[in-house]
This record gives sequence, structure tokens and C-alpha cells, in this order.
Amino acid sequence: MSTAKNAFYAQSGGVTAVINATAAGVIETARRHPDAIGKLYAGRNGIIGALTEDLIDTSLESDADIAALRHTPAGAFGSCRYKLKGIDESRAEYERLIEVFKAHDIGYFFYNGGGDSADTAHKVSQIGETHGYPIVCVGIPKTVDNDLAVTDNCPGFGSVAKYVAVSIREAAFDVASMALTSTKVFVLEVMGRHAGWIAAAGGLAAEHEGDAPQIILFPEVVFDEEKFLAKVEQSVDANGYCAIVVSEGVRNAEGKFLSEAGTRDAFGHAQLGGVAPVIANLVKDRLGYKYHWAVADYLQRSARHIASATDVEQAYALGRAAVELALQGRNAVMPVIVRTSDDPYEWEVGTASLGDVANVEKKMPSEYISDDGFGITEACRRYLQPLIQGESYPPYKHGMPDYVTLRNEPVAKKLNTEFAL
Amino acid sequence: MSTAKNAFYAQSGGVTAVINATAAGVIETARRHPDAIGKLYAGRNGIIGALTEDLIDTSLESDADIAALRHTPAGAFGSCRYKLKGIDESRAEYERLIEVFKAHDIGYFFYNGGGDSADTAHKVSQIGETHGYPIVCVGIPKTVDNDLAVTDNCPGFGSVAKYVAVSIREAAFDVASMALTSTKVFVLEVMGRHAGWIAAAGGLAAEHEGDAPQIILFPEVVFDEEKFLAKVEQSVDANGYCAIVVSEGVRNAEGKFLSEAGTRDAFGHAQLGGVAPVIANLVKDRLGYKYHWAVADYLQRSARHIASATDVEQAYALGRAAVELALQGRNAVMPVIVRTSDDPYEWEVGTASLGDVANVEKKMPSEYISDDGFGITEACRRYLQPLIQGESYPPYKHGMPDYVTLRNEPVAKKLNTEFAL
Repeated sequence: MSTAKNAFYAQSGGVTAVINATAAGVIETARRHPDAIGKLYAGRNGIIGALTEDLIDTSLESDADIAALRHTPAGAFGSCRYKLKGIDESRAEYERLIEVFKAHDIGYFFYNGGGDSADTAHKVSQIGETHGYPIVCVGIPKTVDNDLAVTDNCPGFGSVAKYVAVSIREAAFDVASMALTSTKVFVLEVMGRHAGWIAAAGGLAAEHEGDAPQIILFPEVVFDEEKFLAKVEQSVDANGYCAIVVSEGVRNAEGKFLSEAGTRDAFGHAQLGGVAPVIANLVKDRLGYKYHWAVADYLQRSARHIASATDVEQAYALGRAAVELALQGRNAVMPVIVRTSDDPYEWEVGTASLGDVANVEKKMPSEYISDDGFGITEACRRYLQPLIQGESYPPYKHGMPDYVTLRNEPVAKKLNTEFAL
Repeated sequence: MSTAKNAFYAQSGGVTAVINATAAGVIETARRHPDAIGKLYAGRNGIIGALTEDLIDTSLESDADIAALRHTPAGAFGSCRYKLKGIDESRAEYERLIEVFKAHDIGYFFYNGGGDSADTAHKVSQIGETHGYPIVCVGIPKTVDNDLAVTDNCPGFGSVAKYVAVSIREAAFDVASMALTSTKVFVLEVMGRHAGWIAAAGGLAAEHEGDAPQIILFPEVVFDEEKFLAKVEQSVDANGYCAIVVSEGVRNAEGKFLSEAGTRDAFGHAQLGGVAPVIANLVKDRLGYKYHWAVADYLQRSARHIASATDVEQAYALGRAAVELALQGRNAVMPVIVRTSDDPYEWEVGTASLGDVANVEKKMPSEYISDDGFGITEACRRYLQPLIQGESYPPYKHGMPDYVTLRNEPVAKKLNTEFAL
């Protein structure tokens, strides 16, 4: 008689270009251990799938389709923004999870997300103790924001970093060649609510003095209008143009976002967008330069076509490591990236305690931002550079990336109960 | 004694991901004919370089650097937005051109640009007759807008088309996977002032019923708010989300651009940008859906990293053909793409008269837009599909595309006169 338990895997929070590579790592590794892991169920739309007993039977997907996840962006099973509160505050949710896990004989829980998700996974890891339901719970890091604690970097970040660095280099070539009679100032808005990692990645495009981007605006640096305008003018005088990367999270001296859309997501984070036109109009009003601006928005985090090969490899490795940790019975942990050398870049997979990762936000070290606040330092470049190494092109069909859409067949429900979210 | 004449090449108007591939075609072909073509000079910042006698000596660039133009976006010699008026209106400009051409023994004039540039080239081609200065003048097509007459398509368009189709597919994968609890409507703004070719290219991402983009907003179709909102609602109901590609040139029933920045370029065209937030806010206000929006702006036309191999090949072929036409003494012509078969796609280089290309804008045929006005037809897909075929990746160094920056050494001035633009 088999002692194998089923496993549950869910994707959580904002998706990335490589979170499906992690899913491939989880599923392919689980498939190699049928003695220990029976079926691997995925939550449809993340943890919501567990709460509503809406499970996907990944065993019905072909090996080829699972392998194709490695080159497919976004969340193949659906993700969600839904945060479980503490065990005392939302008893019903935890009891429901246990009910669903029991009904489907789930003994392993893999939760693939950012800081909020590490917190959820940490709480679920405790239900053995608190509710007497033994489960091995392993978190798997993922976030384009690169703001998770303990891990050297987060899967998803390297690819958005590469996208931003490549995009600002290309756009700046364009602007430079037209600046005499056309646009002199170009502004690219990128993601990063509280941490400037993504904006900093734009700095990788600048390899020589004067290279674009000439200005990076970080959420960590209070926006100083006069200092900024002086720097723009200086760049236009010196280079004929000025290319700017601005983080959506840039704030003024009063701590207000330069552009605030006013809506908030399920975690209470402000939903931003539109700081690029604010910056561009400021430049136009005060300096009179012709401007253009771009907002990369979701394009940057879904751009699997220009993913970093390092990022893809690490995303997969962490998925595989998560299953291996689970097979060792390691509860309440998360596999992380440990950097052992900058140049040549070397890394290995280590293990963190979920409690150490949950709800801790890793900001850019101040020594990664140049003294004038508008660029990155050599230390920052040494950190970022390896993360964008290598290209990992998807296959193409009819001139388009051939991304997979899974069958996502539901697992038959065993409970006859609804659950109100 | 050599009878070779020098040649002048200039890039004009908005640059593209592949205009430098055309430059490579021109220069490499000219280098193979030293008997007929002496030095090839490029105008620094386009035609302005000719007027100000600011010429670049391309013979000082290495073969390797010229070859690298094939994978480098934007205008390696600088481009400009500067339109020569008619010969009667701006005598001084034409006389100055002749003065500079004479001083540098220029017998060939290659002008690489869009409709306005074809017009300029056409006027210059007449100076043999009007001013007694014999020159062989050949236009070379280039425009991301794909709105040039006679040629089946324009170099630069295929790559922006591929960028837009890939980007909306990727972003839609992202939105689809998050739609249950997050963004339901995503809006991507793309270029195309008066012609919807670029927006139409987004339609290539939709291969099956229900695929993104579910809505395309064309400049050719008057924006109907109610019909649009009904279509958004229908898509969210059917697919869980709605991905929209909107052309910057979309207008309302009064003929006004939905978003007008108010500034104009040197040709008197309105400078647009920012229709995506207008559309997104409309959706939010009227339907209450959570939205995100992106503005691709220059990223789309400079994205050499995801260029269409077909586009790169055609851009190069037209540069080569321009020189071959010049060597045959063909004045006032432009090499064009002639499509001989849709599937398999086959094309050859033909020849158009500059007079037939100048100032004619090719709009999307109405049979390329679906009956409801929100999508493309099969005929449109047959036309567009081959243009995004194939990938043509640049080489990478340190994880970044290794684009070339030329030395761009000036040719010693022979005239001691200034020219006021």
C-alpha cells in the first residue's frame, strides 16, 4: 500500500515571466517521486482554489506541456491577490483549508509568491501544531520587486531587470539619434512600489560615462524638483538628450507618491501608474524640452521573450529544491538563492525559515545609490549584473512566441460545501 | 583617372529598429563598387548634415562596425524632422544643397525615410533639371507606420508589428492569470497617427476565438463609447478579462483625438500620447473594472531585440537595391517590396517612381477591419502574418544587446559659409 500523499501548489500575487518555470520545477520533480508524492494539485487562482475546493489535476497535463511552462510567462493556474489573516482572526479560512486538504489527502503545500505569500505559507505551516493537521509546507520565492528577505535575489526580478535595461538602452539610441530636432527628454516608468531594484536595473544600460539612462529616480530618494531639473539640463547640454528611468514609487518631500491613482489592491497597497507623464510635463513646463514618455506596466514583468537565462534557471531550481525539501520533511522553510561569487557569478540553493522571510521588505542598500541620488554605484552593478546574464528565448510559431495554455482540468469535488471568500 | 563620384546618405524622420540595417545595405554595397562610388558620406542628423556641411566619412568605419549596423536600432548617423519645402519656396535650401554636393563631388543621393522624405528626395531628384546639377537621387522606404504608397510594406513596420503582437500576448497572459482578484482590463497604447497598421498588428496575437487582444481601437474607426463599453463588458463576461490595443490616433465623432498633447512636430503633425489612460479611466468610471495601462512609445520602434527577421532582411535588401539602382543611373526612384505570394510568403524588390510615393498616405483597407470595428479580418492577417516572421537576435555582451556606436568622424569642411536652418 502506498504511503504517498498528494501535494498542493499555488501561485500567489503578481505573476512574473518565470513563475511558470518554477511550476515546471515543482511538477517535474514531484513526478519523479511517485512513491512519496501522489498527485500534484494546483490551486485555480492560487489559494482561492484551495478555499473553494477548485483544484486542478496537473497529472492530466502532458510532459511536453509541463516542460513548456519553462518558457511561458504569467501564472498557468491563475494567481490571486488574497491574503490570509492571522490564525486567530480568520479561523474559518484555516479550518476550510484543512477540510479541503483532508478531503484530497494533501500532505504537501507549496506556495509560490512574495513577502505576503511567505507569511501565508508560514501560517499554514503551523496548522500541524495549531489544528493537528500534519502538513509539510514549503514557500517558494517569486517577485519582480526583488524585495524578499534572506534570498540574494528573487526569481522574476532578473527578467524584469533585463527588460528594463534593454528597453532604456534601445529607446535611448532612438532619442539620441533624433534629439537635434525632436525629443530631447525621454521618461520610462517602471515598477517598484517601495524598493528601487527595478529602476536600478535600468542603470545596467549605462556602461560608459554619459550613457543612458542619465537619470534614475528611486523610491528611496526623496524627489527634489530643482536638483532633478538641473541634472536634466546638464545631461541635455552634455549629451544632447536625457533618458530617465523613474520608479512608480517616487515620492516628494511630504512622502506623497508623485502620481497616485487612488485605488488600492487587496493587500492595501496603493495602485500606482502614471508618474512618467508627471515627470515629462514638469520637464516641458520648466525647461521647455520636447519629451516622450513610456509606461512599461505589465509588459515588463510578462516579457518572457527577453527573459534572463539566469533567472529562468534559478526559478526552475527553486521549484525543484522546494519539492526536495518537502521530501526531506522540512516544514516551514523556503529555498533561497545564495550567492557565493560575483565574478564569475556563482550561486547555490540554500534554505531559509519562512518566519524569517514573512513580511520583511528588503530595500536597496544606500550604498547602491550614487551620491547624487540619480544613479547606481559600482557595488550595485556588481550585484545586478549577473542577474540579467544569458538569453533564454522561447520557441516561436508563426512569428510569435509559442506559449502553452494548459488544460487545467478540475479535480472532482469531494465536499458538498460552498465557502464564501 | 577615376570617374567615381562620392555618395550622400541620410536618415530621415522617426527612426526604426531596422533603418541601420538599410544603412548597412547601402554602405556595404557601395564599398563593393569603388569604381563608381568614391566615398560614402552620411549626413549628421539627416538632411541637416547636408545643409550645414556636417558630413560623416563612413569610409573610416571598420567593416565589422558597418556589419554591426544590421543589428543596431535607431539612426547611427542621426536623423531629423526637417522638411524641405518646394523648390520655389525655399530656393536657398536647394542652392545650398547643390553647393555642398559640388564641394564634395557628390553624384549620388540616398534618402532613407517616410512619405515626407520621399517628397524631399523627389524634389532633390529634380535639381539636375531645375539647377543644372546632375545627381542620381534614390529614395529608400522606412517607416514604422507602414503608410507609404506603392511598396507592399515598409521596413521598420514588421519589427514594431512583432513587438506589439508579442507584448499584448505576454501582457494578456499576465492579466488572464490575475483577473479573478486583480486587473480585468488592460490597455496598451501603440503608435500610428492616421493609419491603424500598428494597432492591427496586435491582432496577430489572437489566433483562436476569445484570444487577446479582444479589442483593437483603430484611427480609421470613429470611437463609439457605448459600443466600446458593451464590448469590454462582453469580453470580461466571456473571458474573465479584456485586453485592448489602442492606436494613439483614435478620434471621437467630432474628429478630435481622444488625447491630444497639444504640441506639434516640425511637419505640423500633432504630437500624441496618453490615450491609454483616457480609455482606462473611462472603463473604470463606467464599468468599475480594475485596470492597468501601458504606453509603449519609443520602446516599440526601437525594440531591435525582438525584430522581425523578415523586416531586417528587407531593410538590408532595399539599401542594397538603392545602390544598385543608382549604379544603373536610375534617378528619382525608390526600391520597394513587391509581394508575389502570401503563403508561402514570397517577395522581391521592385522599383517605384518617387513622384508616386511622395506625400501619399496608405491607409488600412476597410476590408482589413472586422465588421464590428474592433478587430482584424482574415485578409488582414494574411497580409500581416509574413511581416513578423522569423527572429533576428542581436549579439549580447554582459547580458545586454551589443549595439554599435560608430566613430562618426566629420569630413573636413570645404566651404567657409554658415547656413541658417
